[in-house]
Amino acid sequence: MPKISKKGQNMPESPIRKLVPYAETAKSKGVEVIHLNIGQPDIKTPEVAMDAVRNNTLEILEYSRSEGSQEYRTKLANYYGKCDIDVTADQIIVTTGGSEALMFAIGSIADTADEIIIPEPFYANYNGFANASGVEVVPVVSNFEDNFALPPVEEFEKLITPKTKAILICNPGNPTGYLYTKEEIKKLAALVKKHDLFLISDEVYREFAYDNVEHYSILQEKGIQDNAIVVDSVSKRYSMCGARIGCLVTRNNEVHKTALKFAQARLSPPTLALIASEAALDTPQSYFDQVITEYAERRNLLITALKTIDGVKVATPQGAFYCIVQLPVSNTEDFARWLLEDFQLDGQTVMVAPAAGFYASEGIGYDQVRIAYVLDKKDLLRAVEILKEALRQYNA
Amino acid sequence: MPKISKKGQNMPESPIRKLVPYAETAKSKGVEVIHLNIGQPDIKTPEVAMDAVRNNTLEILEYSRSEGSQEYRTKLANYYGKCDIDVTADQIIVTTGGSEALMFAIGSIADTADEIIIPEPFYANYNGFANASGVEVVPVVSNFEDNFALPPVEEFEKLITPKTKAILICNPGNPTGYLYTKEEIKKLAALVKKHDLFLISDEVYREFAYDNVEHYSILQEKGIQDNAIVVDSVSKRYSMCGARIGCLVTRNNEVHKTALKFAQARLSPPTLALIASEAALDTPQSYFDQVITEYAERRNLLITALKTIDGVKVATPQGAFYCIVQLPVSNTEDFARWLLEDFQLDGQTVMVAPAAGFYASEGIGYDQVRIAYVLDKKDLLRAVEILKEALRQYNA
Repeated sequence: MPKISKKGQNMPESPIRKLVPYAETAKSKGVEVIHLNIGQPDIKTPEVAMDAVRNNTLEILEYSRSEGSQEYRTKLANYYGKCDIDVTADQIIVTTGGSEALMFAIGSIADTADEIIIPEPFYANYNGFANASGVEVVPVVSNFEDNFALPPVEEFEKLITPKTKAILICNPGNPTGYLYTKEEIKKLAALVKKHDLFLISDEVYREFAYDNVEHYSILQEKGIQDNAIVVDSVSKRYSMCGARIGCLVTRNNEVHKTALKFAQARLSPPTLALIASEAALDTPQSYFDQVITEYAERRNLLITALKTIDGVKVATPQGAFYCIVQLPVSNTEDFARWLLEDFQLDGQTVMVAPAAGFYASEGIGYDQVRIAYVLDKKDLLRAVEILKEALRQYNA
Repeated sequence: MPKISKKGQNMPESPIRKLVPYAETAKSKGVEVIHLNIGQPDIKTPEVAMDAVRNNTLEILEYSRSEGSQEYRTKLANYYGKCDIDVTADQIIVTTGGSEALMFAIGSIADTADEIIIPEPFYANYNGFANASGVEVVPVVSNFEDNFALPPVEEFEKLITPKTKAILICNPGNPTGYLYTKEEIKKLAALVKKHDLFLISDEVYREFAYDNVEHYSILQEKGIQDNAIVVDSVSKRYSMCGARIGCLVTRNNEVHKTALKFAQARLSPPTLALIASEAALDTPQSYFDQVITEYAERRNLLITALKTIDGVKVATPQGAFYCIVQLPVSNTEDFARWLLEDFQLDGQTVMVAPAAGFYASEGIGYDQVRIAYVLDKKDLLRAVEILKEALRQYNA
């Protein structure tokens, strides 16, 4: 029997999805599982987007352009303009989700065994994309105690080698919810400039910033136009994760031209989803105002409720819709499994994402879980109630 | 300025798309360009597929399952059953186009610097996918004179090294239109069995077989269930190239499990396109009968017409909707550019795909072009008329 590749063997399992079989078992036993583990929002997709799909009059579902249509990219550039990011349609490549944008970015700037430095905990699939491209992830640990703020640049600098090609951040952060300050972005900008590195920023949660703090994009920072690459997506912004439309934005013409060759090889992004995405750009501001208010309220309510549980600590996120929660257990993966296999409160249990999978360093995060507040407030409160009782029983 | 990767530098430009800027210049001068260069069919997408999209009642465009829904995979398994291919839903992973299925296959079985043997000429983007994965393409030349039949297995065997992981074929072939016989598939099966290699077959043109010759899938061949990996797509079958839905089919459980990890990292295939693809499986047989008849007629008409041009030779394809044409010029890329830049016949010209880009070996195919017969008969005849006059002037 022919063997699978080392790359395939090393491909990490998603920490978010690996417990799914246990959840299915729980459901088959009639237990209702409240999902705190996935970032699938319950918010409705803007009607303007779904209507555009329903009203399409296409007779042939043709390829779109590899880089996305001129019309869509022009409208996108206009959207970025409103975010105080000055880019042109020609600096955008439309991709199949933010995932593909990141794959194109990594492929364009890093070869086999090259290194990318990422503050941890980070979005677990970065490991998968790096592994698929043969690239090494070098983690810099950020701390629960200061809400996962940017580690001192000296910590990055210590790790830079001739193989280092880029620093990758997620802003606001998944799984941390941390929103980098303008000062932190400036420090990173100076660092990549000094060492001639790329700075890749995953900004798919750009709109999800609370407490009246404004998101500061790496594309707003002057002087790093050849270093900055932004990965973006419509998934969270318009609650259309299933569209699979993202984009790669860079003012570095060489990177753009190179990523375009990757884009051409896979022909085109999905045409129907492009119709939805283009229409979504006409979503009224009132939609976002409502959504952001809702998420901010959920965050406040969730954090307040979690803090009433003995031994539970919560890092306070200012963005995205995740938070990292420290639990009074030694191994949250065991606990998360136990929640699904052996626990229920009046026919219900909760599913959480063990946080160790969001760290590349061994031995960190075993007492942490990631919680996504993508459920309505009633369900969130009930989930916390279940978690409280579960912890009491688990530790008894 | 930070540097792009070697991988990025080596990423090949698509031979189909690299002349596009010249076509745009021609159009801007008011010249109508008849496209013989791309495999975008003019056939209508089945109404049942587009209606399903128009009638969708989704309120949230959510992620689908990473491997595709149980329902769709069950229906797909049923479709394969009708093709005399016995697979289950659990042996299928739904992908974003055939492109992604091939990426997952390569990633699952080959590491950096591993080798995959491919008969040439081959679908040019195989080069791109191999390069993106750090894998080497090792070509075996097939010949115009025998319509690009399978080269003798000895030619493959000579090239097998410890780094060889797979043989990749496209059946029926793009760009050759060659349909492998059952005997040829059996020879390949014996070869991969003997050397413990994978056999990857791109069968996206399965339905497009003419002259009452039946397609024989590698999944119909007994004894290679651990070796066989099929790459498939709805793009050509239902004239829905823009859907970007394909699949990877294998009975090798290790490959399936590994490819699934790649699938999970990118979250899910596009949800709207899945709705279209699932509905498309209800397309009545009459649709295919009509489409296949139409393509067979186009092929006959095109080949007959091309053969009336002095010095032009055509390989006779029995499948897909491409043919390789030998022209009486020394460099078809120069000629193809000239067609767009300097030629017109009553305000029209044609765009062809120079064939050298479909070969990995240097110095082959410079007198060949690939022609896609995805236009109606009138346009095809007109295109041949233009080509005839162009060759007369070019060689005068």
